[in-house]
Amino acid sequence: MESEQLYSRGYSRTGYSSYNSITSASSDEELLDGAGTTMDFHTTEDDNLLDGDAASSPGSNYVMSNGGASSSTHLLDFLEEPIPGVGTYDDFHTIDWVREKCKDRERHRKINSKKKESAWEFSKSLYDAWSGWLVVTLTGLASGALAGLIDIAADWLNDLKEGVCLSAMWFNHEQCCWTSNETTFAERDKCPQWKSWAELILGQAEGPGSYIMNYFMYIYWALSFAFLAVCLVKVFAPYACGSGIPEIKTILSGFIIRGYLGKWTLLIKTITLVLAVASGLSLGKEGPLVHVACCCGNIFSYLFPKYSKNEAKKREVLSAASAAGVSVAFGAPIGGVLFSLEEVSYYFPLKTLWRSFFAALVAAFVLRSINPFGNSRLVLFYVEYHTPWYLFELLPFILLGVFGGLWGAFFIRANIAWCRRRKSTRFGKYPVLEVILVAAITAVVAFPNPYTRQNTSELIKELFTDCGPLESSQLCQYRSQMNGSKTFTETPNRPAGPGVYAAMWQLCLALIFKIIITIFTFGLKVPSGLFIPSMAIGAIAGRIVGIAMEQLAYYHHDWFLFKEWCEVGADCITPGLYAMVGAAACLGGVTRMTVSLVVIVFELTGGLEYIVPLMAAVMTSKWVGDAFGREGIYESHIRLNGYPFLDAKEEFTHTTLAREVMRPRRSDPPLAVLTQDDLSVAELQAVINETSYNGFPVIVSKESQRLVGFALRRDITIAVENARRKQEGIVLTSRVYFTQHAPTLPADSPRPLKLRSILDMSPFTVTDHTPMEIVVDIFRKLGLRQCLVTHNGRLLGIITKKDILRHMAQMANQDPESIMFN
Amino acid sequence: MESEQLYSRGYSRTGYSSYNSITSASSDEELLDGAGTTMDFHTTEDDNLLDGDAASSPGSNYVMSNGGASSSTHLLDFLEEPIPGVGTYDDFHTIDWVREKCKDRERHRKINSKKKESAWEFSKSLYDAWSGWLVVTLTGLASGALAGLIDIAADWLNDLKEGVCLSAMWFNHEQCCWTSNETTFAERDKCPQWKSWAELILGQAEGPGSYIMNYFMYIYWALSFAFLAVCLVKVFAPYACGSGIPEIKTILSGFIIRGYLGKWTLLIKTITLVLAVASGLSLGKEGPLVHVACCCGNIFSYLFPKYSKNEAKKREVLSAASAAGVSVAFGAPIGGVLFSLEEVSYYFPLKTLWRSFFAALVAAFVLRSINPFGNSRLVLFYVEYHTPWYLFELLPFILLGVFGGLWGAFFIRANIAWCRRRKSTRFGKYPVLEVILVAAITAVVAFPNPYTRQNTSELIKELFTDCGPLESSQLCQYRSQMNGSKTFTETPNRPAGPGVYAAMWQLCLALIFKIIITIFTFGLKVPSGLFIPSMAIGAIAGRIVGIAMEQLAYYHHDWFLFKEWCEVGADCITPGLYAMVGAAACLGGVTRMTVSLVVIVFELTGGLEYIVPLMAAVMTSKWVGDAFGREGIYESHIRLNGYPFLDAKEEFTHTTLAREVMRPRRSDPPLAVLTQDDLSVAELQAVINETSYNGFPVIVSKESQRLVGFALRRDITIAVENARRKQEGIVLTSRVYFTQHAPTLPADSPRPLKLRSILDMSPFTVTDHTPMEIVVDIFRKLGLRQCLVTHNGRLLGIITKKDILRHMAQMANQDPESIMFN
Repeated sequence: MESEQLYSRGYSRTGYSSYNSITSASSDEELLDGAGTTMDFHTTEDDNLLDGDAASSPGSNYVMSNGGASSSTHLLDFLEEPIPGVGTYDDFHTIDWVREKCKDRERHRKINSKKKESAWEFSKSLYDAWSGWLVVTLTGLASGALAGLIDIAADWLNDLKEGVCLSAMWFNHEQCCWTSNETTFAERDKCPQWKSWAELILGQAEGPGSYIMNYFMYIYWALSFAFLAVCLVKVFAPYACGSGIPEIKTILSGFIIRGYLGKWTLLIKTITLVLAVASGLSLGKEGPLVHVACCCGNIFSYLFPKYSKNEAKKREVLSAASAAGVSVAFGAPIGGVLFSLEEVSYYFPLKTLWRSFFAALVAAFVLRSINPFGNSRLVLFYVEYHTPWYLFELLPFILLGVFGGLWGAFFIRANIAWCRRRKSTRFGKYPVLEVILVAAITAVVAFPNPYTRQNTSELIKELFTDCGPLESSQLCQYRSQMNGSKTFTETPNRPAGPGVYAAMWQLCLALIFKIIITIFTFGLKVPSGLFIPSMAIGAIAGRIVGIAMEQLAYYHHDWFLFKEWCEVGADCITPGLYAMVGAAACLGGVTRMTVSLVVIVFELTGGLEYIVPLMAAVMTSKWVGDAFGREGIYESHIRLNGYPFLDAKEEFTHTTLAREVMRPRRSDPPLAVLTQDDLSVAELQAVINETSYNGFPVIVSKESQRLVGFALRRDITIAVENARRKQEGIVLTSRVYFTQHAPTLPADSPRPLKLRSILDMSPFTVTDHTPMEIVVDIFRKLGLRQCLVTHNGRLLGIITKKDILRHMAQMANQDPESIMFN
Repeated sequence: MESEQLYSRGYSRTGYSSYNSITSASSDEELLDGAGTTMDFHTTEDDNLLDGDAASSPGSNYVMSNGGASSSTHLLDFLEEPIPGVGTYDDFHTIDWVREKCKDRERHRKINSKKKESAWEFSKSLYDAWSGWLVVTLTGLASGALAGLIDIAADWLNDLKEGVCLSAMWFNHEQCCWTSNETTFAERDKCPQWKSWAELILGQAEGPGSYIMNYFMYIYWALSFAFLAVCLVKVFAPYACGSGIPEIKTILSGFIIRGYLGKWTLLIKTITLVLAVASGLSLGKEGPLVHVACCCGNIFSYLFPKYSKNEAKKREVLSAASAAGVSVAFGAPIGGVLFSLEEVSYYFPLKTLWRSFFAALVAAFVLRSINPFGNSRLVLFYVEYHTPWYLFELLPFILLGVFGGLWGAFFIRANIAWCRRRKSTRFGKYPVLEVILVAAITAVVAFPNPYTRQNTSELIKELFTDCGPLESSQLCQYRSQMNGSKTFTETPNRPAGPGVYAAMWQLCLALIFKIIITIFTFGLKVPSGLFIPSMAIGAIAGRIVGIAMEQLAYYHHDWFLFKEWCEVGADCITPGLYAMVGAAACLGGVTRMTVSLVVIVFELTGGLEYIVPLMAAVMTSKWVGDAFGREGIYESHIRLNGYPFLDAKEEFTHTTLAREVMRPRRSDPPLAVLTQDDLSVAELQAVINETSYNGFPVIVSKESQRLVGFALRRDITIAVENARRKQEGIVLTSRVYFTQHAPTLPADSPRPLKLRSILDMSPFTVTDHTPMEIVVDIFRKLGLRQCLVTHNGRLLGIITKKDILRHMAQMANQDPESIMFN
């Protein structure tokens, strides 16, 4: 056995000298008997390595205790049985991706090996293989159905602010007028069955009295909805507030927040989302739909032990669910998948890509079957443009991109500052009052302006739509050039009529109002998405720029640019396209999404034609935004809340080494370590009680500092309690050992306690000279929880995810203590 | 300094005993003086750690020698200067992704720190930041232009087989007839300027003589083109053959094949691709276009030192280039990006996603400007269907999926068996003969059948297209039901006319011929893509099934299914859709692509409507194919060629531990290691000459086996040669040391040689108990080249990428020696 040579040289003294520093009492004792126990160490430490049947224990030690019965049966020991609770996580703790993936592979192997035993086992393995598809199908179905439900309910409640349908209370304005067969297309929103509140209460539809009545009822309903929403959230499910995307990002990166994706959150979020949208607050339902879809994914994953018992597998379902959420929010399945990939997910294997795509499609088709928009279109804003864009238009598109980036940067700063103030001052203690206040201001200011009064989605749709002959909107009131006759004139485009001028003013006011109120709305204790408000701001700005360009092209049609490109008599500028580009730019500025955003908007129009303007605007917006701060709104909120989120996108650019980040620092007490076979149960418990670390390195002996493995605090506690309850003869003086065989003990000593099964024998280690950029890379890519630091084979310290986050915060001149949780 | 406590305990003897095995002479010697040199070890080994200015040398030791001048200037040493050649790779070696990424970060930091020094440095940093966008833009432009060129040239050469345009030699058939203004749409392929060879030579257009003349000329040109193509490939650029995708996958995973993406390969591949396509062989230009685009990306990356000097960064450009390649191949930019992500790329950060998207768009727009298809469409096969699909049609779609999966599995097995035979027998020594033979058979068999005679892309386009009133194809010769009048009858669909029946027979023959000949064609020494032949086979099968369904619906219109779904008088079944689904299924069966394939085909039709049939077929095809073997054609060819490719998709499902895979095995000689400060130059050279390993672990001493770092063979050789040439006093007896300070030596000893700068102080280590699944995961995700194995802090062995590949081959009952290269 020549390979033994390698470790046979360990006999002589190590070429390593002592530094005459103070050693603790316990290590001094060991120093004395260090040489005497050499032979003991041999028998205990390396037997496992040298017992000749290296290949006969195929199960990794890592998994033995976690995944169920181990396949190595030659060790009969109480603790080789799975201990209930070992391998699970506490709330607000970070999961260990490597361990979870190992657990899953072990489970998979077990099922595979049993498969051929019986037909029952075979069908069980089939069920197991298909459960992934089943759970994403169910998630897709539920997300689509809930999205449809929310759409319909929000539409109805939203119209309730204006009036009721007399023929059927449960119809919204549009549905009410569908049933009336006397309405023409142009007068589709005026039908006898639909009564405004003024008509109903005062009996008159016109005049200042009825206006005030309508105004009052609008505010009344808005406040009622807002009050109901915030109360429901506060009483039943505090996690239901906000957009949920920052938390979902954190959860997907491997953090545990129990109840965040639970059934109560789902129920309350669904109800309050409808109320919040209907209350007229400047918020959208798209972000929260991702949260709703993730709740569905989480709940359905409990039906399948493959997913419910494995935190890593569960996150695969959640990734697919978030794709389904965006898919139903915009009707863009491919965009949803890319959103999940680019923005939300952390661990995204190709299998998940495929399943996400499937979930997104299922959800989109369910939504289309429900047909909440009544146009059998999948997408929220379906637009079709008939004129191409011209190269010179890139300049206004890029300007819109600059606007989007500036708005994004401004919004993030202002919103974060406001949220921080809310957190730190006593203002944050009255969330209900705050919501009511914001809702009241919104309602009071919004009602007089038709562009802020209407539903934000409808506003965006109107702004996106190009003016056709059937369009009755104020935005399309152009003066006909030849006194009504439809002959072509020599100038391109059309001059704006008084309606357009009025609309421009109203749009400008709406823009200012929306910019201000959105800052105070995002972060309220109601479900609130940011997609729709951002897009609305961008669409308004874009439409204004578009109309300005159009009028410029009309009045200065002999300018070089317009002469060169614009055909005579035809429309040259499409203001709707500007609105779309502006919406994408503003959304990009706030979220810093790129590809997924372009693809989502591409799916809205369905033509590759307009990808270049979109890309130009989105890229500009991202660059401009990044110049003021690299974080998007979601990352900023993650940081504000101190979640332990290690962003995969952010580059670690500093030159620190692992030894500068690891604990213990120079001024700290030495690292709390366990030795592999000379601790008693009492000593072990003392170490655990005196420290608050989540895990302890296990070393060969205090003097050699050579690393054996890593044991988690939670596992040790559970295992010791379990042993003291179930195993006889385990007392406080029992020796605890992590080795394969029990150490040689005096004859009268109590029965020793073997804890090898909870020992992670393959802890990740790096050397103290490893640059932190590599360490960060390892943590990100492998999803580690902690990593041990060695120098020349000796244990020096430990780096946890939190240490890295703290260090990164410190490097960015932020408060390292803002990183909360473990 | 309390943290010193941790390593101050190393004084006493280690608790590790010797196994009485044979140790080598040299280690025996060290055994004797092991205790005596303890103090020396102290001064040399740990000074760097304890010199108090831990933070003052910010540059990682790892990077110092590689990235140029180091930022730590307090060490004046010859070898701290970058040694030319250190940090580069040999041909057919694997790159170390971690090292490359560190190098790039170091370069980035250097530029950033200099940025504020002067305007010149600032503009240099701007140029550096933009060079990524510049190189993908250039790549996109070049790929688009080359694709357009190839399309036009191939079209022209292809038509040359049939005849020439008298008015202008350089016009192809279609262009020739464009200029003739007398042709109507229906007779667009008959115009006086275009002369077939029979007309030109014999002066007659009809009759058996002219048919034979045309036949002969067809074969003549086909053979000429094929001969020219294979000769060019053989003489000038042997790497230009095949599709190139297996090699590009391998290169992107971090392997070096010099010249594979060079300018000669680009030139010859472009020319021979045109010839090969024109020769009528059963191959496509889509796969090779990816290779062409990657060549462009590689060549342009040489313009920017950021990319040319860093193998990892270069691969980012190549990922973007492959997206551009697919984008121009199909006119599907989003599909191209997903193809790059799903099928080709290995390391795909989000930044690359964005740049890939940009490159794909630029390439697509350049191609559209060139407009090679003459229809200002971006996509290769633009189709528009007007009828929806019905739920019962899912059954035939799934059957097409099964066919696709079976064909894929069959093709892969047959093709690999044939390629293996070609490699192992002397048949493979005559590639020119083989090409001529296959081309001759193809031409002889293909000419009589109109569906095999025509260009395969055109065939696919014809099969995809639905029968409209303007369609003159034989496939659309339905019997009109009411004697020519266009009134609706009571039955859906239309009965097939004699043209359709004839077409069905010809299609069946074409299907059989294509299935057989493609097996022998893919792998010839000419550029050959597999996308188009696979799609053609699927499209033929799909169209046959579609027409069969249509006739079934016509003749059995009272069946429950058809009665339920098909409207009376309208077309119910769209045979073109079946062709499209079949094409996707067959391509999926061969390549095992999923999402990217669906998205590519989705981009062809532009409607979400048909995604469900496509998904059903592609998923079925993948599952059926996977049942017969999990590898796609590209992975199979990678394995056939023995490239060191660690597939990120394949799960490692075995339960081996690291110690079972590591070298040295039990029967091997001990691991070749270097000690950190007691080797002489001669001993070092002896170790290097006696072994063939690519790197050597550096340990503290033979007796302690504690790991210090890792040094690469290439770097050692270069550094020693460099030192002996440039540094005075370095002789064979000079002591080599890897420590911070020189060891204390006798007064008369020659000047020692410091090699610390080439030492990787942060080698990756795993414990011997680490399950191989984790090790494989680490290798994949971090892109490692090797990993050291330790047990309780002592070095045991090493695992390289090749060891893992060998082990995986062994586990899959394949020949482990098939893994070639390092």
